[in-house]
Amino acid sequence: MLKPLGDRVILEVQKDEEQNVGGIVIASNAQEKPQTGNVIAVGTGRVLDNGEKVALSVEVGDTILFDKYAGTEVKYAEKDYLVVHEKDIVAIVD
Amino acid sequence: MLKPLGDRVILEVQKDEEQNVGGIVIASNAQEKPQTGNVIAVGTGRVLDNGEKVALSVEVGDTILFDKYAGTEVKYAEKDYLVVHEKDIVAIVD
Amino acid sequence: MLKPLGDRVILEVQKDEEQNVGGIVIASNAQEKPQTGNVIAVGTGRVLDNGEKVALSVEVGDTILFDKYAGTEVKYAEKDYLVVHEKDIVAIVD
Amino acid sequence: MLKPLGDRVILEVQKDEEQNVGGIVIASNAQEKPQTGNVIAVGTGRVLDNGEKVALSVEVGDTILFDKYAGTEVKYAEKDYLVVHEKDIVAIVD
Amino acid sequence: MLKPLGDRVILEVQKDEEQNVGGIVIASNAQEKPQTGNVIAVGTGRVLDNGEKVALSVEVGDTILFDKYAGTEVKYAEKDYLVVHEKDIVAIVD
Amino acid sequence: MLKPLGDRVILEVQKDEEQNVGGIVIASNAQEKPQTGNVIAVGTGRVLDNGEKVALSVEVGDTILFDKYAGTEVKYAEKDYLVVHEKDIVAIVD
Amino acid sequence: MLKPLGDRVILEVQKDEEQNVGGIVIASNAQEKPQTGNVIAVGTGRVLDNGEKVALSVEVGDTILFDKYAGTEVKYAEKDYLVVHEKDIVAIVD
Repeated sequence: MLKPLGDRVILEVQKDEEQNVGGIVIASNAQEKPQTGNVIAVGTGRVLDNGEKVALSVEVGDTILFDKYAGTEVKYAEKDYLVVHEKDIVAIVD
Repeated sequence: MLKPLGDRVILEVQKDEEQNVGGIVIASNAQEKPQTGNVIAVGTGRVLDNGEKVALSVEVGDTILFDKYAGTEVKYAEKDYLVVHEKDIVAIVD
Repeated sequence: MLKPLGDRVILEVQKDEEQNVGGIVIASNAQEKPQTGNVIAVGTGRVLDNGEKVALSVEVGDTILFDKYAGTEVKYAEKDYLVVHEKDIVAIVD
Repeated sequence: MLKPLGDRVILEVQKDEEQNVGGIVIASNAQEKPQTGNVIAVGTGRVLDNGEKVALSVEVGDTILFDKYAGTEVKYAEKDYLVVHEKDIVAIVD
Repeated sequence: MLKPLGDRVILEVQKDEEQNVGGIVIASNAQEKPQTGNVIAVGTGRVLDNGEKVALSVEVGDTILFDKYAGTEVKYAEKDYLVVHEKDIVAIVD
Repeated sequence: MLKPLGDRVILEVQKDEEQNVGGIVIASNAQEKPQTGNVIAVGTGRVLDNGEKVALSVEVGDTILFDKYAGTEVKYAEKDYLVVHEKDIVAIVD
Repeated sequence: MLKPLGDRVILEVQKDEEQNVGGIVIASNAQEKPQTGNVIAVGTGRVLDNGEKVALSVEVGDTILFDKYAGTEVKYAEKDYLVVHEKDIVAIVD
């Protein structure tokens, strides 16, 4: 299991299958990067300048929208995940 | 539904139709980007350094003027929205 | 009406007419940008790090001198305005 | 009259006359920029992060030395002034 | 022994052996940098702006995932270590 | 007299005479910049974020070592001085 | 004697002799810069934003490991020293 630190959130990002446009296969690299993910783990919170900890505002199971290009890709147990900081989360999709 | 985080505001931006100048159609790309939008969702507020939360100064339904080039475009349920931070909102149009 | 946010001030800037130098008309683009404006609306104040609000030090009706190149131009109701942050105001002209 | 804001100080800078070196006139542009000025107006003070105001440490009438290239030139009532922030003042010349 | 300062953590990083792909040896330089390490020493904690010390959230013996390109390589007693700041630790692998 | 502001210190820097290396005179420009100076005036202290003033840790008469390239040269009463901020002082030479 | 200011530490760095590799002398410039040093003087401590002073975590006599390229070289009494800030000290070698 991965336990994220601080204000980090680990996401599972839905990779679209290769699309077939008018008979032409477009490799997924050429497509727009997905901006939605499912939260699978959240950190223990952001530490303020005075030492207090603020719990994150997303929970495991939430579907979230995040800033394009945000996050770091990590590979764990043969699967790819995206780790984003809370400040890069735009909105919760309800 | 989209629930923005922190000091974010989600806007619906009025896209002008393609204009017809002297019989020549100008694609909307070549036109000036709009700077006005309608607030359709607001975040729970900005978190200060001491952990307090400050409510946003705009409300759902407000028409606002925002800085050119501010914001991130997001697509949700086949519609385009703009997400801006409160600091990028110039004024409320009353 | 435009209600500026935070420490913003909305100005009406006097655009000089095109000047006629020795019979040659100089388009106003080639002239120096004006640095004086009349305050027509002020924000509710700057928010400090501890959450307090500090009222602005200029008032509607003041004539002010502002830093060259400061501010964002906005168009509202067919008129052009300049929105500047309080920190870009150099002095009040009394 | 010009009333500077915040920690700004308005200076009258002594422009040296064109110098005549060995019969060759050197236009003042080619000379070193002056670094001394007389304070003709001071702002109401610097605002700290906690909202307190700290009075400036120079007074109207002081002669000061300021960092080369600091300040913004402003023109008012046909005269040129230099507006500098307190942090750009190196020393008071006594 | 190495005693790291502040919020630093010293890691032993597992270097993969040179891989043999289809009979071709790929030198380890050409491979992706490892992102996992074992904590062998932790600092005494991060010092807050108010002077308080916050203990680190990882312990000696933890396996951690860290940001690609984070850290400084140090050599000590003929072995290579990586020193990372706590903020560069993405997650604890449990 | 020059009264420095804030955390500034005014130094008299010993300029080495032109050196004569094997009969060749090396103009002092080509030599290494001096890094030692004598404190001839100190500011009233650094102002903290909370408005308190902290006295400087050097005194008039101290010989100090300062960072290469730190400081601003000023000319006063036909003499050259160097003004450095306290943070650029490396050590007091005792 | 050199008395460092603030959070500075003065180090004596062991310069390796020129190495002789297979009969070829490699000038020490071409070698890797050393990263270990002996503390010969420590500053009075880092000053926090609230004016408090925090003592350094290294002592005279410690052997320390510091970040490559950190520090400023100073020459004093014909010897070369390296002055580093506490934040550039990676670990104490025990």
